[in-house]
Amino acid sequence: MELLTIRLVQWGVENGKNEYQLPLEDVKWLPPIPKPWKNIMCVGKNYRDHAIEMGSEADIPKHMIVFTKAPTTVIGHKDSIEAHEELTNELDYEGELAVVIGKQGRNIAEADALDYVFGYTIVNDITARDLQVRHKQYFLGKSLDSSCPMGPWIVHHSEIKNPNGLNIQTRVNGEIRQNSNTEHFIFPIEEIIATLSQGMTLEPGDIIATGTPSGVGKGFKPPRLLSKGDEVEIYVEGIGKLNNTVN
Amino acid sequence: MELLTIRLVQWGVENGKNEYQLPLEDVKWLPPIPKPWKNIMCVGKNYRDHAIEMGSEADIPKHMIVFTKAPTTVIGHKDSIEAHEELTNELDYEGELAVVIGKQGRNIAEADALDYVFGYTIVNDITARDLQVRHKQYFLGKSLDSSCPMGPWIVHHSEIKNPNGLNIQTRVNGEIRQNSNTEHFIFPIEEIIATLSQGMTLEPGDIIATGTPSGVGKGFKPPRLLSKGDEVEIYVEGIGKLNNTVN
Repeated sequence: MELLTIRLVQWGVENGKNEYQLPLEDVKWLPPIPKPWKNIMCVGKNYRDHAIEMGSEADIPKHMIVFTKAPTTVIGHKDSIEAHEELTNELDYEGELAVVIGKQGRNIAEADALDYVFGYTIVNDITARDLQVRHKQYFLGKSLDSSCPMGPWIVHHSEIKNPNGLNIQTRVNGEIRQNSNTEHFIFPIEEIIATLSQGMTLEPGDIIATGTPSGVGKGFKPPRLLSKGDEVEIYVEGIGKLNNTVN
Repeated sequence: MELLTIRLVQWGVENGKNEYQLPLEDVKWLPPIPKPWKNIMCVGKNYRDHAIEMGSEADIPKHMIVFTKAPTTVIGHKDSIEAHEELTNELDYEGELAVVIGKQGRNIAEADALDYVFGYTIVNDITARDLQVRHKQYFLGKSLDSSCPMGPWIVHHSEIKNPNGLNIQTRVNGEIRQNSNTEHFIFPIEEIIATLSQGMTLEPGDIIATGTPSGVGKGFKPPRLLSKGDEVEIYVEGIGKLNNTVN
């Protein structure tokens, strides 16, 4: 039996202990950010190979592409991803490193950008490709309920020396589909934060999903999209594994 | 001197009155929705004549275009719109009727859609056209701080018999620039709510800006964009006037 060890200050004082262990299978994982959820901003096509698999070299962005997901999309580790079969035939996964902003800021210089990060987590930017294309702006195709699995936890920035050099892998039913490293970002995290904060105040709790590498379902020929029962696991070095099943 | 009359239940009970008058110039107008602000969703190109002025007949959408503005953009009636001169040379106005959702709902039928509306307000969907074009997805060009003047108040839905038949006008420094009626919506409000709520839960306090008619600054040849000192006033029939000055 795997055990999760947690440390609870108040509980510890009351019970004369500072640790509490419980079986992992009894844990209900909540998203690591409490409601009301803040703005969930996503950088589009931030890896060259993903931009190319979705179109051609011409799709490699010269300027950052940013869209949002509705705050209602957020679910936790192990929660179910709804298949939404009546709405989409092209439900897809996108494994991403996500930044959690910790401090209010605007016009942040690249050199100071990491000072505004509270920590890092993992996001699966679930996308209905048919809705994404049909509605031109990405919001609707990115905002079906449960399309933002997040977690399992936030790792404090002090544990991640270089967020622009982390291995990232996505497995579907155990098979590796995405396998890259955040060193391949077109826009590294410092530049993302600097660009987003130009004239736009970032707030503590804002989430920035940093983009996905190649290997999404739609990038395969023929496409290998998600259906009911598929298990998606995203690993990011230094953070852990986010695991969700389509239902 | 113009007076604003407000009715305050608790204040009235304590003071033996149910009305309170104060000079209008002493009123500090806050946005009609309190923080933390919910999702601000906007329908793009929802009037044929505006779609054409921004491009051609080919730009008239067949499917709804939806993007968001950052929640941090919201300001109240009479608040200043920042010029952001160091970031944009193309600050523009967009007068819009906005819907305030009052009840949680998903997969809402068009026939029931208006039951989910709490009321209506006015939004000025301030847009940095150069950023909107440069970054492809609209979010960044729509989300500079103070780019969502909203108000002056929310009118309860019971006061608006047909939200798809309201005159709407935008004046810049007193000159009429936009002059239309919400009867020209490509997607009327019932269809907007039905489409947005397909698989995506709407929450009380969500704001939906319904799109802008022709006559935006960028639509003129040559363009007539905003600069410091310009006063923008948006009138919507049955709601009132939202007034903000660029600063």
